[in-house]
Amino acid sequence: MSHPTAIEVANEFWRLMATNDFHCVVAVLAPTFVMEWPQSKERIRGAERFAQMNKEYPAHGSWKFSVNRIVGGEAEAASDVSITDGVQSARAISFFTVEEGKITRLVEFWPEPYAPRKGRAHLVEAME
Amino acid sequence: MSHPTAIEVANEFWRLMATNDFHCVVAVLAPTFVMEWPQSKERIRGAERFAQMNKEYPAHGSWKFSVNRIVGGEAEAASDVSITDGVQSARAISFFTVEEGKITRLVEFWPEPYAPRKGRAHLVEAME
Repeated sequence: MSHPTAIEVANEFWRLMATNDFHCVVAVLAPTFVMEWPQSKERIRGAERFAQMNKEYPAHGSWKFSVNRIVGGEAEAASDVSITDGVQSARAISFFTVEEGKITRLVEFWPEPYAPRKGRAHLVEAME
Repeated sequence: MSHPTAIEVANEFWRLMATNDFHCVVAVLAPTFVMEWPQSKERIRGAERFAQMNKEYPAHGSWKFSVNRIVGGEAEAASDVSITDGVQSARAISFFTVEEGKITRLVEFWPEPYAPRKGRAHLVEAME
């Protein structure tokens, strides 16, 4: 039996996250699952801790997830996802490592808005 | 003749960036090349403007690029690259769209360090 590709697993991960029942996301995580946030140098080991962290994260109602893009191949994928609870908004860039159809490693970045750098207006245009 | 995959083109892009001769990077950019920075809502149209922007960006000597990872497939790829000029350091997450061996679109994120969120120390460990 062939396993789903990393792209398929990443899609399923975000489908399950969208249920807001974070415990059910454990279904696509490997027993050795590790998540890393390089910006804050935090690491979460284990599917249960990951589910608990999401459950405990302060939210104003339910989270909505908009998948802007998922790219990748058999064993690795990257996603760009916009997330909001109606009050807070964020964008997550996530790198997935998948083995035998389960996510073994997730490396996640949370880029924040910043003001355009001065002095390059002659080269850039504003996005809507 | 088959064209190189998006992963191969992304590798070549970073190899050319590492020369610090930003004009030579134009070789892997399509005539319709567009780059977007969603965080600052800036867009650069055209390979020449992209090269000029990099040339004009204030640097302390040469930029060094460390490719942490490139994932993707035939037409799309994502890279995670650490960049420093010895004084300034940054991390770029870049999504490449490739057609016929040339980059048509680059969407780039620049995540900054942030402090760990309080109240989740029971779930996380510190990365080195």
